[in-house]
Amino acid sequence: MLAGRPTPASVTDSTMNWLRDIEALRQLPQRYARAIDARDIDAVAQLFDPDGSVDGLRGQAAVPAYLDGLRAMPQTGSTMHVLGDPLIELDEGAGEAHLDTYAIVYQLRPAESPEPDGMLGMRYLDDVVRVGAAWLIHHRRSVLLWSRPLSR
Amino acid sequence: MLAGRPTPASVTDSTMNWLRDIEALRQLPQRYARAIDARDIDAVAQLFDPDGSVDGLRGQAAVPAYLDGLRAMPQTGSTMHVLGDPLIELDEGAGEAHLDTYAIVYQLRPAESPEPDGMLGMRYLDDVVRVGAAWLIHHRRSVLLWSRPLSR
Amino acid sequence: MLAGRPTPASVTDSTMNWLRDIEALRQLPQRYARAIDARDIDAVAQLFDPDGSVDGLRGQAAVPAYLDGLRAMPQTGSTMHVLGDPLIELDEGAGEAHLDTYAIVYQLRPAESPEPDGMLGMRYLDDVVRVGAAWLIHHRRSVLLWSRPLSR
Repeated sequence: MLAGRPTPASVTDSTMNWLRDIEALRQLPQRYARAIDARDIDAVAQLFDPDGSVDGLRGQAAVPAYLDGLRAMPQTGSTMHVLGDPLIELDEGAGEAHLDTYAIVYQLRPAESPEPDGMLGMRYLDDVVRVGAAWLIHHRRSVLLWSRPLSR
Repeated sequence: MLAGRPTPASVTDSTMNWLRDIEALRQLPQRYARAIDARDIDAVAQLFDPDGSVDGLRGQAAVPAYLDGLRAMPQTGSTMHVLGDPLIELDEGAGEAHLDTYAIVYQLRPAESPEPDGMLGMRYLDDVVRVGAAWLIHHRRSVLLWSRPLSR
Repeated sequence: MLAGRPTPASVTDSTMNWLRDIEALRQLPQRYARAIDARDIDAVAQLFDPDGSVDGLRGQAAVPAYLDGLRAMPQTGSTMHVLGDPLIELDEGAGEAHLDTYAIVYQLRPAESPEPDGMLGMRYLDDVVRVGAAWLIHHRRSVLLWSRPLSR
């Protein structure tokens, strides 16, 4: 074998790690959906880099302030975040990735609520970083594309 | 090579098989959606372990009884099962996996039907087992999260 | 090693390439959604084989004519194409694949439009070919399954 040329084995390992990373990255938005729909903010916290930030519907916030905001939100009704497959950008061996995820968020109010149920067309643009063995959202931009009431 | 240590080749094979299994598992809910929307109950049957059970909207049933129930359902209108990416739990080399899939089920009635069209927010929690070269749903829990009429 | 038997290394490479192809194929519908929702017809063009054809809501057209039709469409309101995970058929080492993708297309009109917003249940059946390092849609059949107005 010539010095300086990557061996087939190392090429293989690098591609395999890339594929494994893709699977881990694909889980992130789905884990977010389940955590936020369960209002399990500790589970949401595990998906975000504590040094990161979120640029969302309520303005820009550092991750700890974003999580505090979620914890303080009034608990009426429920939500369901139904997500498309994220479009994932990740170079082999890279420590950061970009996810672009389409979502429809259903907002279901209690039957007695005067507010109508709603559906929101959302897009999550996430800069994700590798931290140890995990991938964490370092920066999320949540874009509200449209919203409409749901019939009841 | 030291006895008892896995060789790099076997690590590679194991990870590759895991990745291949993930792809096979990811297909399961999508194949279910197409089979059920086509009312092809034989195709649905191929996705379930005949020794398994389904805990669904019409109670708990062994798989054969569940399939009989599907065959007996009145055939009015059509459905479309639009699914998010399943959250897949599978350990390398394991013979069982868990899938957690969000779905919106659209129920479209014939134009003359007095019943409104509907949309259902569903969650499928599947225990899946490897049977030979295939993965089959051994136990499915279908959870109806919410439902609303669709405008016409 | 026996002559004529594939070596473990080549099996590995072939499976790894298959897994990589699956990831590339999975991106295609998501890239289509973003391109068409942005009305970036040049980006749409990059996903289609120029020698291919599209059998869609406005009849059958060669890809260049299909793209011209998109460019000529009146620009009122916006769309959001929310897609399920494609069901991908690809044999190891093959140069063509088949994708079957469920979609809900939201059509949002400007507030002053007399036309209601709509949601369409769609299914994209794509024959995809490998062209150099890329995968391109050689033939797309777009099937409109149902459509309903959205409440406003």
